[in-house]
Amino acid sequence: MFSPRSLAVVGASDSPRKWGNWLARGALLGEHRREVHLVNRRGGEILGRPSFRSLHDLPSAPELVVIALPDDVLEAAVEEALTAGARAIVVISAADDQDAASARRDRALAERVRGAGAVLLGPNCLGVVDTEQELVLTSNPLPAGSIGLISQSGNLALELGMLADEAGLGFSRFASLGNQADLDAAALLRDFAQHDATRLVALYIEDFRDGREFARAAGEVLAAGKPVLLLAVASGPATTRAVRSHTGALASDDAAIDAACRAAGIERVSTATELIDAAQALLRAALPRGRRVAVLSDGGGHGSIAAALCARSGLQVPELGERTSARLRAALGARAGVLNPVDLAGAAERDLHTFDRTAELLLGSGEVDAVLLTGYFGGYEQYGEELAREELLAASRLGEAAVAANRPVLVHTIHASAPAVAALREAGVAVYPAIERAVWALARLAEVGEARPDGVAGLPDSAPAGALPEPAPAGALPEPAPAGALPEPAPAGARPADAYEHARLLLAGGGITFVAQRTVRGLDEALDAADEIGYPVALKALGLLHKSDAGGVLLGLADAAALERSFGELQARVRPARCSVEAMAPLQEGVELLIGARWDARFGPVVLAGAGGVYAEILADTAVALAPIDDQEALLLLRSLRCAPLLTGARGRRLLHIDAAARALAALSRVAAEHPEIAEIEINPLLVTGDGAVGLDARLVGAADQT
Amino acid sequence: MFSPRSLAVVGASDSPRKWGNWLARGALLGEHRREVHLVNRRGGEILGRPSFRSLHDLPSAPELVVIALPDDVLEAAVEEALTAGARAIVVISAADDQDAASARRDRALAERVRGAGAVLLGPNCLGVVDTEQELVLTSNPLPAGSIGLISQSGNLALELGMLADEAGLGFSRFASLGNQADLDAAALLRDFAQHDATRLVALYIEDFRDGREFARAAGEVLAAGKPVLLLAVASGPATTRAVRSHTGALASDDAAIDAACRAAGIERVSTATELIDAAQALLRAALPRGRRVAVLSDGGGHGSIAAALCARSGLQVPELGERTSARLRAALGARAGVLNPVDLAGAAERDLHTFDRTAELLLGSGEVDAVLLTGYFGGYEQYGEELAREELLAASRLGEAAVAANRPVLVHTIHASAPAVAALREAGVAVYPAIERAVWALARLAEVGEARPDGVAGLPDSAPAGALPEPAPAGALPEPAPAGALPEPAPAGARPADAYEHARLLLAGGGITFVAQRTVRGLDEALDAADEIGYPVALKALGLLHKSDAGGVLLGLADAAALERSFGELQARVRPARCSVEAMAPLQEGVELLIGARWDARFGPVVLAGAGGVYAEILADTAVALAPIDDQEALLLLRSLRCAPLLTGARGRRLLHIDAAARALAALSRVAAEHPEIAEIEINPLLVTGDGAVGLDARLVGAADQT
Repeated sequence: MFSPRSLAVVGASDSPRKWGNWLARGALLGEHRREVHLVNRRGGEILGRPSFRSLHDLPSAPELVVIALPDDVLEAAVEEALTAGARAIVVISAADDQDAASARRDRALAERVRGAGAVLLGPNCLGVVDTEQELVLTSNPLPAGSIGLISQSGNLALELGMLADEAGLGFSRFASLGNQADLDAAALLRDFAQHDATRLVALYIEDFRDGREFARAAGEVLAAGKPVLLLAVASGPATTRAVRSHTGALASDDAAIDAACRAAGIERVSTATELIDAAQALLRAALPRGRRVAVLSDGGGHGSIAAALCARSGLQVPELGERTSARLRAALGARAGVLNPVDLAGAAERDLHTFDRTAELLLGSGEVDAVLLTGYFGGYEQYGEELAREELLAASRLGEAAVAANRPVLVHTIHASAPAVAALREAGVAVYPAIERAVWALARLAEVGEARPDGVAGLPDSAPAGALPEPAPAGALPEPAPAGALPEPAPAGARPADAYEHARLLLAGGGITFVAQRTVRGLDEALDAADEIGYPVALKALGLLHKSDAGGVLLGLADAAALERSFGELQARVRPARCSVEAMAPLQEGVELLIGARWDARFGPVVLAGAGGVYAEILADTAVALAPIDDQEALLLLRSLRCAPLLTGARGRRLLHIDAAARALAALSRVAAEHPEIAEIEINPLLVTGDGAVGLDARLVGAADQT
Repeated sequence: MFSPRSLAVVGASDSPRKWGNWLARGALLGEHRREVHLVNRRGGEILGRPSFRSLHDLPSAPELVVIALPDDVLEAAVEEALTAGARAIVVISAADDQDAASARRDRALAERVRGAGAVLLGPNCLGVVDTEQELVLTSNPLPAGSIGLISQSGNLALELGMLADEAGLGFSRFASLGNQADLDAAALLRDFAQHDATRLVALYIEDFRDGREFARAAGEVLAAGKPVLLLAVASGPATTRAVRSHTGALASDDAAIDAACRAAGIERVSTATELIDAAQALLRAALPRGRRVAVLSDGGGHGSIAAALCARSGLQVPELGERTSARLRAALGARAGVLNPVDLAGAAERDLHTFDRTAELLLGSGEVDAVLLTGYFGGYEQYGEELAREELLAASRLGEAAVAANRPVLVHTIHASAPAVAALREAGVAVYPAIERAVWALARLAEVGEARPDGVAGLPDSAPAGALPEPAPAGALPEPAPAGALPEPAPAGARPADAYEHARLLLAGGGITFVAQRTVRGLDEALDAADEIGYPVALKALGLLHKSDAGGVLLGLADAAALERSFGELQARVRPARCSVEAMAPLQEGVELLIGARWDARFGPVVLAGAGGVYAEILADTAVALAPIDDQEALLLLRSLRCAPLLTGARGRRLLHIDAAARALAALSRVAAEHPEIAEIEINPLLVTGDGAVGLDARLVGAADQT
């Protein structure tokens, strides 16, 4: 596909408003490398050379055929390409309505192509590029470089191209995914993993198809030492989905994507700018081995702002030790700031090598993991040729210092298009036109560095490639089918009438402890149950999705009189057919967590842990993983929460039984992975005390219950 | 200062590396408006015209004198300017060492100038500009426009100038503050408030001098209908300050700046880019009356990314109603997305007025408060002259639609320097080159809109100008003196030996309720106290700053035996001279808050409220105000917390006594404002239940105790 020995453009055109024209122009750029044929059923001259009326008229079989024809003749054109001997087909054509009928047509096309031993990209795609091979089959050229780009949006690919160009970066390959009828993102990832000129892979994906296969393929790219950056937004407007549960509110489809990224070691970003900023850092800078940053500026204002941003982004700007400060003072003079931020305060204006010498001193001090230069660098060339030459040399030396120290140097400058900036980038220094972008990139780099302590940017942090968890039973993942399709529910009769009881039964069966409980229908049964359990008790109305919100939960009933009164109240208010009488848990002795799982149409079961109880929504403190996970993975997930210090006895607090909580989380993840008929299941709260972890409430939504 | 009829540059020079040269060149640009004289003690020709050896040689008195001489002759030069009749003096010169001696010299200079009835800007400043008056006395020109800029950093002013230029904005006036020996930020703010050509004031400040005076002056600018944007970082490296208390850890000096911004209605920003992005939105867009955004794109990828960013930034992207969707469907065709995000999906390529007509439809639907256009707009000109003309017209009509609807339209485009972008900006539309910047600006605009429901960007949200709270006793605010200077502590003998008891006494005297408590020395006293208070009790060791961390707090002692055992443990572990026996509070029935105050060297007493207890650090959920505040203001502060729903009975929770919490907060703020000798005081936790608010622990740090 990317290095064909011969290629044909079907639908080639002389009209500069047509795809067939853009593709033909692009194809001819590589004419010195391969045979290029233009095909148009009307024949005649196109772009000054003869065209063919049919692929069958070509002097030899075209290895690659790109089709830009009206959609209604697409099937015939693909047939013609296959019979003419094409090994790869790129289909720009697209149905006006992307509906069920066009999806069926796409599947049939893909089967036909595969049957012939060929591959197909598209339909509805925007072409392919391989800059090394001078293969340009798309509407806009892309700058050459080392990024492999896979995109499902044309305008975004264009934006990424412009931003990469601004950053002095470019692309090794580009493939537009289109409808992924045959080749999908996973297939292209596997190809990019083997492609020497590709040093980093960037993706914009709207539909992940087989999500776990996607993650495995991304893992292979990472295993080849190439970072993977993913720009993705949750499929479908989250706002239009009925939010039926807490888990749903806290963990949108984003959770599934995040879980896959975590499993495969993919770096997820939110915008095109973030993608290029992260790419620049990963391609140009060494991974920091910690979060200590020396801020270096040629003016107090820029230094202060950078230091404040660093602190807010989880980076540290430590005060430098006496020895380093004294050396800086000796080198920079009395007006300089030498504690960190380091402010050159005019010393650089007298000698531009102050920049590289100071950076070298800081990098070698052992007191910082990175240097962030912010301010005016690049602008000194305005003051004459001598300064311009000196500045270019200082730029190279800054880069050499970073390489020698194997520590990252990132630069923010207000002169981002100056010649010295190009020199910096050539020397392997990442340069940004805004301080917030430089700090963001450095913080992200520090995160990657923490996940990859060996300092190799491309290695995944958790499971090695191929070792992704598989939901059981095998094959339970839904077919890559239209988004929203969910696995079939279990027969309705197979589960108890109340989702609370169903959830409790399933989860207790999986090994999770719940508070003592009895389901009761009348007051007498309730009083008997309470006697058995022991006062104080809690009383819950069954059959309500959000019991608490509806006033269906009454806590701390101290004796029979209180229970009788509460039972009456509950009957009057929500008329439950049945109630649950439960032991009161020692809430004040523990911390409440929320643990849950949901079945994602693309990624299968995803497990979530977070702060629970009344703080669940306020903290919005959650961590996710592809299910199932084992006890050790569950422990890592819990320790990654912001509320983890409440469990681990920080600041003189009681040490709680985090291992028991991890076991419960792992058990829940197994239950979820074994039951594709469950759309969502959760325990909230799971009370973690010094003695263990016990579920106080549970909830389940079957796939059949979802609207 | 900004519109002198005559001006003299002292230290004018022919050397293009000297300030005296840059200033002279700038000054001559306005020669057709005013007399400009160049002064150099060596005389001769400068920039092709005769210079004067002394200000006394000028044909008439210079109204404005700008001095760029070596620092050692500065005093003589100022003296000469005053005797020559100068009314305003701008001093570029600066001492090499900004130390105590130079500060004394600055004060003396300022007194001399004031004594002569003149004003002085600097020393150590980078000049002044008034673009309307063609007064350019600085090293770099600034683009003309309507922003009044006051800066304490030269490079930042330069960066702001470049960013403003990129955004099609410019400056009415610029003043560099320097050392603020005479004129300070407050004085310049008052001047800018009256300046017609200034529609918005932007500040970069490192030292606020009299902080409350600064806030009052900013309030006057706002009262004149002009937004005030402040870029400021906390003074001094926060990392080097010993963090001695929870309040300290949660509320750095940033809290004082935030409190002043809140009081005066100032918009605080963190970077130069944020400042210009906010300025563009405030100057070009109407204030939204809500957070509902229609995302409009000419490609699905950009729309999804924008919608996801909006949701993350607290904006809403609501699904559009049936009527609006149907109208969009009719206008845009079957491939368009019509639910929100609205994806034109090719409709714009056929007719560029699809952009303005769709925006107009959305603005008039009543279903959204703003339209955010994202994608390719501006790039259609590439496809020929007709499209270029159409695009310019579409840009104007987009602006007209926004003005007619009095709702904001913000645009992100990948073609940010296209002619249509200039047309958009001229038509009053804010345009950004990155989607995250557009969404950030819109979210900020929505915040301002909420604070100013009348829709006037310039009006402060709380206290009208002049009504800022004054700490009592009057005059207790420290002199504008070197940062870090603190008010004198009260005599040490005047307070009890333990900060906990001191805090309790002071705060209880202010009207705050604490749990019943007795201070005891031995076990017998402890047992008597517990009998009096009633079991269960808590036992605390006194004399420790962080009692809990040191294991000095034992809770829930049920009877005399438990108390005796715990008393023994405590003696063995921390050997306290005295202990506190206290009633156990009903923790499970309430929510724990933290309330506190600290005395800031520049802004005086600042009060803080936040989530308390074990969640204080994890939530980092705090709100600040200048103290003292009244009950109503305290209530607003509490309601602004993320944890407020826990107090206000949201989602079926118990309604807690938030009014009692507000009264306690207001009382604490009064105590803090009345006691300048207290550096920090706090209650953590303040337990808020359905019945009231009660302090469970308190802490105080005297100014004399600070290191």
